[in-house]
Amino acid sequence: MCMSQGLEGVVAAETAISMVDGERGELIIRGYAVEELAPNATFEETVRILGIGDLLDGERELQPIAYEVLRAAAQRKDDPMDALRAAAGLGGAPLTTFPTIVAAYWRLLHQQEPIAPSGDLSHAANYLYMLDGDVPSPERVRGLETYLNTVVDHGLNASTFTARVITSTGSDLVSAIVGAVGALKGPLHGGAPGPALDMVFEIGEPSRAEAFLRRKIESGERLMGFGHRVYKVRDPRADVLAAAAERLLAGNPLYDLAKSVEHTAICLLEEYKPGRRLQTNVEFYTALLLHGLGLETALFTPTFAISRVAGWIAHCVEQKAANRLIRPQSVYVGPRGLRWTATRETAPRIL
Amino acid sequence: MCMSQGLEGVVAAETAISMVDGERGELIIRGYAVEELAPNATFEETVRILGIGDLLDGERELQPIAYEVLRAAAQRKDDPMDALRAAAGLGGAPLTTFPTIVAAYWRLLHQQEPIAPSGDLSHAANYLYMLDGDVPSPERVRGLETYLNTVVDHGLNASTFTARVITSTGSDLVSAIVGAVGALKGPLHGGAPGPALDMVFEIGEPSRAEAFLRRKIESGERLMGFGHRVYKVRDPRADVLAAAAERLLAGNPLYDLAKSVEHTAICLLEEYKPGRRLQTNVEFYTALLLHGLGLETALFTPTFAISRVAGWIAHCVEQKAANRLIRPQSVYVGPRGLRWTATRETAPRIL
Repeated sequence: MCMSQGLEGVVAAETAISMVDGERGELIIRGYAVEELAPNATFEETVRILGIGDLLDGERELQPIAYEVLRAAAQRKDDPMDALRAAAGLGGAPLTTFPTIVAAYWRLLHQQEPIAPSGDLSHAANYLYMLDGDVPSPERVRGLETYLNTVVDHGLNASTFTARVITSTGSDLVSAIVGAVGALKGPLHGGAPGPALDMVFEIGEPSRAEAFLRRKIESGERLMGFGHRVYKVRDPRADVLAAAAERLLAGNPLYDLAKSVEHTAICLLEEYKPGRRLQTNVEFYTALLLHGLGLETALFTPTFAISRVAGWIAHCVEQKAANRLIRPQSVYVGPRGLRWTATRETAPRIL
Repeated sequence: MCMSQGLEGVVAAETAISMVDGERGELIIRGYAVEELAPNATFEETVRILGIGDLLDGERELQPIAYEVLRAAAQRKDDPMDALRAAAGLGGAPLTTFPTIVAAYWRLLHQQEPIAPSGDLSHAANYLYMLDGDVPSPERVRGLETYLNTVVDHGLNASTFTARVITSTGSDLVSAIVGAVGALKGPLHGGAPGPALDMVFEIGEPSRAEAFLRRKIESGERLMGFGHRVYKVRDPRADVLAAAAERLLAGNPLYDLAKSVEHTAICLLEEYKPGRRLQTNVEFYTALLLHGLGLETALFTPTFAISRVAGWIAHCVEQKAANRLIRPQSVYVGPRGLRWTATRETAPRIL
């Protein structure tokens, strides 16, 4: 019997999809170091490496009811992740429909009609195309593909774990993916990549970084974009995304500002929290890269989902292949031995 | 570090909601033994005991878009659990809308218009009313309430665990509940309560039970309705449901047949698998009771969800109150050190 409230240190699965070595700052995806794979492969190649390449032939277009659901959500101004979860729950092929759902919802939210997916474009290019109707430059496509490849899988993170738990009951792929979208939405997982960029914008120029960050740390606030539960050294994904952002933002002072904020933040974190080894995490350069691609902050988490859904599906396939119901135990800390004496009128109110 | 592929024996949470003692065959819900609570409380009282009584005031009616989604699902003849998941994902108060979703979908699936929920009826009575338009007898309402109370919570089962994992990321209640519905759908969890009853029907009369069951066991088939991963003695819920089924089916030969099948099955399981102590589980008498209430087999799992959603919500509230991200680890068993040499044309195909 072992006890761990966040399941920290508990191994819940064997996987051949990715390896996260938090002590050494390594991420391996199907045998390739993320630094090797992410900047070089197309997203389609990464999907094939994950063993689910046949799903690339899936339908990109949505069912009519999905558009109706997205329109209703846009009227309520729902969070894009709620809209993605709702439309994904209607069925359809998650890998190929996610870009369509996200782009269609984004346009509906801004009083624009959705743009139909193009079968002539790659997965990444088609997503950018559906957002604004322009066929994107090769540089933007490469930048997005590097991002999608970088975050496609990351061990048993909470959304992937959710997908595996649901799959372990013998349930279907759509159920697993919809659950995973809901988990990714949470700000402790994928749902808060915006604040890191907001902070960079707020700082505005390198000379203001130190005073700003000191104030923030001294007031006990957490610096968004730094620190990770698993990585104790620099998140290898940060390097890959920083390089991609640099290529995309060459000559843009925003990149230099971000580098300066990063450098200052790490020095100050070491000064205020010595030994904690807090380093830049994936959020920081995700924000910079996606911003450089022209995506607004509210699109960051849905774009994360467009990538990670490939990882989720690969994990569902793997879970199914050697399944065992995932069902932990709990320890009961409530009362015992109560007698039911209430009538319908006098039922006790607990809490 | 501890390793457990199904998380068996791993304690993932403290809870004051329910306690499952599989060795002693005990289930406690908020201090009450299930035998004490389930046959006596209304479902509303049970919900209040779970600490979420304020949610009983939630809206029972669905948004128009939910009816559109259910109509589209009915045209495709989707599984009722898929329809429930899809409609639940549109938002709304899960506790009070679940009966409406299930009943509306059931009617649409059978080319009947949905019946609007009645605010004058109790939660359980309203569900039965929306299915066929008749205000149910007190005996049927009592039978259904006993069922709903019996299965309302059960430790960290896979769907409840799913809800807690999603909640642990800081995500919202609807995301958690939608994930849980997907997990409950799986046949290894809530998704297969029908076959136990099918077997009883197939046997047809007590004298045929022994030969039928021997054949089944000897051909290596699993007997549906017997055995449980957690309970090593008789599932206490089986007793409660058996008593409720007996009250409802008094004088109906089906009840005597089921008792006879149960008795024969347990004797034979002890003969063929000595020491395994395989006992009647909750599915067996669930099937009998819900059948006695006039529900068709395809409604069993959705009706389970109408109850369990209260447990899920209580667990989400509890998880939120003392949250820690649930994020286990995995062990990597794949290749390492591959070099990316592929061009876009010659990408390697793994799997």
